[in-house]
Amino acid sequence: MHFTLLSKDPQSKARAGELHTDHGVVPTPVFMPVGTLGAVKAVHMRELREDIGAPIMLSNTYHLYLRPGTDVLEHAGGLHKFNGWDRPILTDSGGFQVHSLSDIRKITEEGVQFQSHIDGSRHLFTPERVMDIQRSIGADICMAFDECTPWPCEQAYAEKSMHLTHRWLDRCLDRFNSTEPKYGHQQALFPIVQGSTFPELRKRSAEHIATKGAVGNAIGGLSVGEPEEEMYAMAELCCDILPADRPRYLMGVGTPWNLLENMALGVDMFDCVMPTRNGRNGMLFTRKGVVQIKNKVWADDHSPLDPDGTCWVDHHYSKALVRHLFVTNEMLGLQIASLHNLAFYVSLMKEARERILDGTFSAWKARLLPQVKTRITG
Amino acid sequence: MHFTLLSKDPQSKARAGELHTDHGVVPTPVFMPVGTLGAVKAVHMRELREDIGAPIMLSNTYHLYLRPGTDVLEHAGGLHKFNGWDRPILTDSGGFQVHSLSDIRKITEEGVQFQSHIDGSRHLFTPERVMDIQRSIGADICMAFDECTPWPCEQAYAEKSMHLTHRWLDRCLDRFNSTEPKYGHQQALFPIVQGSTFPELRKRSAEHIATKGAVGNAIGGLSVGEPEEEMYAMAELCCDILPADRPRYLMGVGTPWNLLENMALGVDMFDCVMPTRNGRNGMLFTRKGVVQIKNKVWADDHSPLDPDGTCWVDHHYSKALVRHLFVTNEMLGLQIASLHNLAFYVSLMKEARERILDGTFSAWKARLLPQVKTRITG
Repeated sequence: MHFTLLSKDPQSKARAGELHTDHGVVPTPVFMPVGTLGAVKAVHMRELREDIGAPIMLSNTYHLYLRPGTDVLEHAGGLHKFNGWDRPILTDSGGFQVHSLSDIRKITEEGVQFQSHIDGSRHLFTPERVMDIQRSIGADICMAFDECTPWPCEQAYAEKSMHLTHRWLDRCLDRFNSTEPKYGHQQALFPIVQGSTFPELRKRSAEHIATKGAVGNAIGGLSVGEPEEEMYAMAELCCDILPADRPRYLMGVGTPWNLLENMALGVDMFDCVMPTRNGRNGMLFTRKGVVQIKNKVWADDHSPLDPDGTCWVDHHYSKALVRHLFVTNEMLGLQIASLHNLAFYVSLMKEARERILDGTFSAWKARLLPQVKTRITG
Repeated sequence: MHFTLLSKDPQSKARAGELHTDHGVVPTPVFMPVGTLGAVKAVHMRELREDIGAPIMLSNTYHLYLRPGTDVLEHAGGLHKFNGWDRPILTDSGGFQVHSLSDIRKITEEGVQFQSHIDGSRHLFTPERVMDIQRSIGADICMAFDECTPWPCEQAYAEKSMHLTHRWLDRCLDRFNSTEPKYGHQQALFPIVQGSTFPELRKRSAEHIATKGAVGNAIGGLSVGEPEEEMYAMAELCCDILPADRPRYLMGVGTPWNLLENMALGVDMFDCVMPTRNGRNGMLFTRKGVVQIKNKVWADDHSPLDPDGTCWVDHHYSKALVRHLFVTNEMLGLQIASLHNLAFYVSLMKEARERILDGTFSAWKARLLPQVKTRITG
């Protein structure tokens, strides 16, 4: 697996590149749709590939470990075979989920003890165990096991946690480098920068991570409630330190404007549940702004769902129909909104990449930003 | 709109035909997927057309009247424009729903007073009103407003109700024949035979309906709890009386074996929520029998969902994956099961039609019947 940097925007830190994997080339910047349990909610694999055009998807180690479990995944021949997705897959490490989802958890030097959010059963995630699970899943990109600090967070705690994440990273690397892929395709391990919103911690963490020579590097612990300006400041600080010839992945971000802003700071990879989760609540992201399709104002609006949209649903279905489907609790409404939002995110990244490649990114971003933030009320 | 009878099976009463409408030709026998609120649950219009290959869909007057309402439908230019389905649509008349869904109802000579199951608001359905609503919807095939008797039912009540349905039919015909389609395409009105499970009532009702010269005729009030043998007896009795040169539609039926049996008795058109509703509960109909995909036995079965299936989902997804999606409450599981079941129903009808046309229907049906009824337990 290797990354090729193709172009840098002259007026920002935005970059265009290519991440080469055994399951194909991922053009960057890229947005990775989230398939928590191995599949993106309400979206068929064929739609993810053909209609949304996603070059890569993300899935969750914590969830897949609990259900269907590593035995089933190994018997299938890995997650790609299990879910029928033949493009690259990135799995997070569960570092975020054991904190946000599990009922009881105890963090020790060894790892995290937690109880399943499903049945209360007790489990232990150690850096070694999480590497083994990701070997069983067969993700192209595996993530290091980290502690994701909440926000706000005391500096002393953030510093202690950062050091733990760093020690765990060495154990992750040891295990990952002493084990082999199970399904014949290469896997890479991305380490994660932590340090909450403290610039000096972020700086030390990024410098530490940069020494590891990983194929790609991630920035974690952001988009957890901090003000957007702090997120941007931390992302920029990390990007400035992390190796320029490797992809930088900002975990769990965000809105369309968050993506555009962070891209301009040097971020190459993104993931977020927002397009699907907010879509299921009727929130549609478009070039012209944000639409709440459940609103009464759309009840008799028979114009296309999104005249600027790149997906067939945008032109096949009307606003009135999709509003009707939401109001009547028809799951087809959720399917349409999920497809629309993911297609919008992916096409936004594709267009951004073209703008970076032709040197017009900054002007394009300046025009688009106020538009995508607008609330469209009818 | 007209029906062409193409072929009759030499060893049964099965028929193959073509129903010509302004939205295209419907080959019969045909199964009509149910889109209660204007769209089939969990199924995109594109999937209904391309992957399932449905030649016609059904929608519900009662539901569409309540939401989105006739104003919105008229502003859209009718249901075809509203939901983006360009093939024929049949709408039931609400005669079944006002009895099964509404909170309070009162049947008078004039019509049915009922309260909405959504907000308790009061409404009156008369034969005239229901015709007007179906003109606003713009269905290619409209159904007469009838009283659908429950089962079991006293003979005296069934007889009284049958006469009411017959009187309402005349009012339906008067109104329908004195109004025009609103959207430029032809609409036909199908009358409905009632009479519960009393052979003499069914005979009288079918004879009465047969005199009306309608483009097609329906058999209602079956598949409401009566034993299958009674349903078959009533369907056969009605088919033997209803005009042979017009399509016969058995409302609300049923399982794959119900379809095969009734087809052999001379039924041409079917609709049922079973493939979608049971699909959403994890029940998959296949050529080899009925599968409950949630069962533990499929947890580690990585073979294709249905090796005999005609839809891409049957070969793209494994049993283990679909079971995993159901167990984890992922709506993609419901989407896959709905697609699979509808594609199975539609392909079963297509194959039956080919067998009728080539004269091998009865032997084929005899082989297939015990198979499709089997419970597959692993």
